[in-house]
Amino acid sequence: MNIRENIRPGGRSARVQASVHKAVRDLLSKMDRNEVTIPLIATEAGVTPSTIYRRWGDLQELLADVAVERLRPDAPPKDTGSARSDLEHWAEQYADEMASGPGRAMIRDVLSSVGADTRNAGKCCGYTREQVQAIAERARDRGEEFPDVETVIDEVVAPIMYRILFDDAPPTSAKVLSLVERLFPQRR
Amino acid sequence: MNIRENIRPGGRSARVQASVHKAVRDLLSKMDRNEVTIPLIATEAGVTPSTIYRRWGDLQELLADVAVERLRPDAPPKDTGSARSDLEHWAEQYADEMASGPGRAMIRDVLSSVGADTRNAGKCCGYTREQVQAIAERARDRGEEFPDVETVIDEVVAPIMYRILFDDAPPTSAKVLSLVERLFPQRR
Repeated sequence: MNIRENIRPGGRSARVQASVHKAVRDLLSKMDRNEVTIPLIATEAGVTPSTIYRRWGDLQELLADVAVERLRPDAPPKDTGSARSDLEHWAEQYADEMASGPGRAMIRDVLSSVGADTRNAGKCCGYTREQVQAIAERARDRGEEFPDVETVIDEVVAPIMYRILFDDAPPTSAKVLSLVERLFPQRR
Repeated sequence: MNIRENIRPGGRSARVQASVHKAVRDLLSKMDRNEVTIPLIATEAGVTPSTIYRRWGDLQELLADVAVERLRPDAPPKDTGSARSDLEHWAEQYADEMASGPGRAMIRDVLSSVGADTRNAGKCCGYTREQVQAIAERARDRGEEFPDVETVIDEVVAPIMYRILFDDAPPTSAKVLSLVERLFPQRR
């Protein structure tokens, strides 16, 4: 499915999408996820159910689309003065957000929609990569050394996400800092 | 939910469970996952739908239970003569299995059932930990050095799983070997 591409900003299609997304967010904030249905969303958004089926295919795909949108970072990583502390700050925030109830629900929605393709999940990974890339570029501008972005994904992001999804307890702040520490063995 | 605990092997409860699990596996092998329903499973297993609802609660919980059972390793990791090559062999096989169509579907089923608790997902992580632990113990018996099991989870298992779930392409064999390589910098 090719949902957001080729949508003219401000056009009818964009307005329908914004209205449906808002309806989903509003419904999810006041009822259980299992009770949300496409007819309910359509009523709340003021569109017909067939508009939703035509554009998103099914409920799971729509929920995933909304979740991806909510997982899109709304600001660049905070500039704390050094690459290492930028990464520490970002990684702690990432772990907190993803381990929260809404964070887990969004990850689940994104992963549940993955059929043959991993388009939605890939977008999330793309957002994460962009954030790490921004920290890396700032480090370069400051003349600091910084590990390869893919190494940060493997050694910091992946363990945080694995432990949120599969482990009994989410990673502690100390655990997150120790993951970053391993990438900066010579500093401090 | 507390499904498998306290079931007497060979008793009525165990027979019902085996029969329902088999029905799910059989149905999943011949029809699309979205078409599988509890009434269909009940007919195939020769039990009433209410038996299934009573024991598993809902379809998602039952699919997760079956998936966890299928993800349980059926043999200890292969003994290839050294800790490093044991881990390489195991990690490549793990990546292959999890990245396969059935592997991804099982991971999705396990993660989809995660509501308030992460019991099913935690079991999968537990199986993985046991396999790595077995390699670690064999290494110790041979007098070889071996990293901490949690380090192997963070540096080998987590990146493999993250890239299967979120990245565009599953990890290549070269990528998996490079993850193991980082844990054995001094060898070879």
